[in-house]
Amino acid sequence: MTQIELARKGKVSPEAKRVALKEGCDPDVVRAGIAQGTIVLTKNSRRPKEIEPVAIGAPFRIKVNANIGSSGDRASIKEELEKLKTAEEAGADTVMDLSTGGNADAIRRAIIKSSSIPVGTVPVYQAALDSRGKGKSLVELSPSEFFKAVEKHLKDGVDFITVHCGLTQAGLERLRKQGREMDIVSRGGTLIMEWMDYTGKENPYYERFDDLLGLAKKYDAVLSLGDGLRPGALADASDRAQIHELIVLGELAQRAREEGVQTMIEGPGHVPLDQISANVLMEKKLCKGAPFYVLGPLVTDVAPGYDHITSAIGGALAGMAGADFLCYVTPSEHLRLPTIEDVREGVMASRIAAHAADIARGNPRAWEWDVKLSRARRSLDWEGQYSLAIDPKKARKLREGSLPRDKDVCTMCGEFCAIKKQQKRIMRALP
Amino acid sequence: MTQIELARKGKVSPEAKRVALKEGCDPDVVRAGIAQGTIVLTKNSRRPKEIEPVAIGAPFRIKVNANIGSSGDRASIKEELEKLKTAEEAGADTVMDLSTGGNADAIRRAIIKSSSIPVGTVPVYQAALDSRGKGKSLVELSPSEFFKAVEKHLKDGVDFITVHCGLTQAGLERLRKQGREMDIVSRGGTLIMEWMDYTGKENPYYERFDDLLGLAKKYDAVLSLGDGLRPGALADASDRAQIHELIVLGELAQRAREEGVQTMIEGPGHVPLDQISANVLMEKKLCKGAPFYVLGPLVTDVAPGYDHITSAIGGALAGMAGADFLCYVTPSEHLRLPTIEDVREGVMASRIAAHAADIARGNPRAWEWDVKLSRARRSLDWEGQYSLAIDPKKARKLREGSLPRDKDVCTMCGEFCAIKKQQKRIMRALP
Repeated sequence: MTQIELARKGKVSPEAKRVALKEGCDPDVVRAGIAQGTIVLTKNSRRPKEIEPVAIGAPFRIKVNANIGSSGDRASIKEELEKLKTAEEAGADTVMDLSTGGNADAIRRAIIKSSSIPVGTVPVYQAALDSRGKGKSLVELSPSEFFKAVEKHLKDGVDFITVHCGLTQAGLERLRKQGREMDIVSRGGTLIMEWMDYTGKENPYYERFDDLLGLAKKYDAVLSLGDGLRPGALADASDRAQIHELIVLGELAQRAREEGVQTMIEGPGHVPLDQISANVLMEKKLCKGAPFYVLGPLVTDVAPGYDHITSAIGGALAGMAGADFLCYVTPSEHLRLPTIEDVREGVMASRIAAHAADIARGNPRAWEWDVKLSRARRSLDWEGQYSLAIDPKKARKLREGSLPRDKDVCTMCGEFCAIKKQQKRIMRALP
Repeated sequence: MTQIELARKGKVSPEAKRVALKEGCDPDVVRAGIAQGTIVLTKNSRRPKEIEPVAIGAPFRIKVNANIGSSGDRASIKEELEKLKTAEEAGADTVMDLSTGGNADAIRRAIIKSSSIPVGTVPVYQAALDSRGKGKSLVELSPSEFFKAVEKHLKDGVDFITVHCGLTQAGLERLRKQGREMDIVSRGGTLIMEWMDYTGKENPYYERFDDLLGLAKKYDAVLSLGDGLRPGALADASDRAQIHELIVLGELAQRAREEGVQTMIEGPGHVPLDQISANVLMEKKLCKGAPFYVLGPLVTDVAPGYDHITSAIGGALAGMAGADFLCYVTPSEHLRLPTIEDVREGVMASRIAAHAADIARGNPRAWEWDVKLSRARRSLDWEGQYSLAIDPKKARKLREGSLPRDKDVCTMCGEFCAIKKQQKRIMRALP
């Protein structure tokens, strides 16, 4: 039985129990959320027992995903494993292997083997790579080859897969009529669009959605319903093409639930700050509370080199509005394949966004963390501040790069340190 | 006559004219805003004519300030001038010299002389330094010495000064009764609190506010009414002490307007994401639309080393809610005096926040910028993307650090580049 099926029968699975312990809630909260489809547990039944499942959905802490993986221009198993390690150390909850270059099968298997956190993939990349292996163009693939790629990944133990099953001929027609600044920027969405455009047929992942459900069920994997029409420019946000696809995804998510398959919904992309709450609300309504997995959102198009920051702004606001899962964006977005250092910066920025949103949502554990750090700060307890900081190494490195004469303070204020001056006085009332 | 007095008489000053040209609006919009006190022009009458005044307030682009200046642990004129140059190059609209170490007079004068943008200071630091120069403790200063420091700065040509004139004995009493996690974290606020605590007297900047108005009027400088009680921990945000001080600042701002003196209001600090809009609304209501100048806000306490990001998140949301002027925060906040690289990172993060908020507020020039960059992106025009990027050098450096085989694309996707694949197809309708 799948997690949903168990939960519907009123049974708390061992994974749900572990999650409840980790999140500090009643196990029945986890069970009920899984049964309703507002919580997913990302764990392929083929992954070893000791791998911790991750729970995505309210009322839990917002989770963070790091995209890693090779490209045709840069492909090294060693580098990808180092990115994995970096993402784990930086505190990512999951990783996605988006490899499209080198020996992608070997890279994926090495990542799954080494990873202590759930792993996601986008199997349509695999279909594209396999077609080339057979000397064919992607557009020559048969629909069943799209599903072979899915099964290959699930058999390897992938915990959640992105499938762009909401991209339909009707949606493409809407897009053509409407026009856009940046058309389709989703890599997977573009591959499927090419196939649809060339063959004139319907998207196999949409038309044969039941086959997808059968595969997901077999491995109890989570389907992450991809937004092939996500906006790639602020000007394209919240347009008819995007919202139409979201309606289709909502319908598919409902069918998946009915079949006992867990789903989450992927979201934009490039979105102006004032449209983010509406985007989250729409997802929650149209998809009946399915967990929302957002890429960014990036709140401006003009900051290549700083898109970890543009997406931390958007991610924080999305999280406050109810998004459940943030996909990081690195400083290299729009410019190059991320480096190892980019992975670290991306995870940190995204964790800050998720935590700021947890605070805004009143998560008690999130609040406790901030209060603890503030108390270390008011006590001028530097070791305490480092160990409580989201990145202890960086905090220590910065301060120790410029040590003050008075070891109580820092070189910003020196003898004018407000905190040190207060210590003699004031005024504690909070518990 | 001061800017306000001129504006009230229906006259558009030469400075207001230049601002209207730069902001692309009718000169009478500038004049009316100055007359009402919803717009300030930061320019000391002693500064040379060729220095561009900066207009702060709606409907203009949100402005960004960079804090520079020495401390007792690190004091070098050369380094501060380099920070100034870096801030200007990175696109800061103003700088504040917060020097508290070395030859602070020489540093300030060198900065004013070299700066092509408005300069602000916090004269109470000067009072503290001068007291030490006389072998006295700050608490032994006479009230008039607090004003001497102000005049010294204004005579040097400082365009706007922070004065913590809303910190009163009644406010301190409220704070004591209420209690706090972090007490007072404002450096200037703490100095004044020490003096008030020791002497038992009222804050001179509050009690003799008319003297402050007289000085500001003489040089047509902007008073930036400082929030000595700004929260230094999320747990302290929006508390009685903070909001009481804001009420006092609103009353003082009204008196200043009546006297023909321009004011803006300083704001927090450490504020949870969900309290930011309310904080902006309160400022706008309590201070009758005076421009709001926020420090951050930082949306979590736990990220020392990344406070340029925590404050970009808060600054963007504050800007969307109506804040007019963002004070940057650097990665070194809470840890050390910022380095030159920190200044650059801080300005960039703050500019991104300001721009994301401008977009959300529907600023047409902000939108135009994003559309232009998106069009360069969809044309795979890399030189165009670099030149339109908020930081052209960084964008170029990242991509050129990892060049693809196909010069049209980047190493993220290589041959799978969605944009290149689209070029053959689709679907342009937007004008």
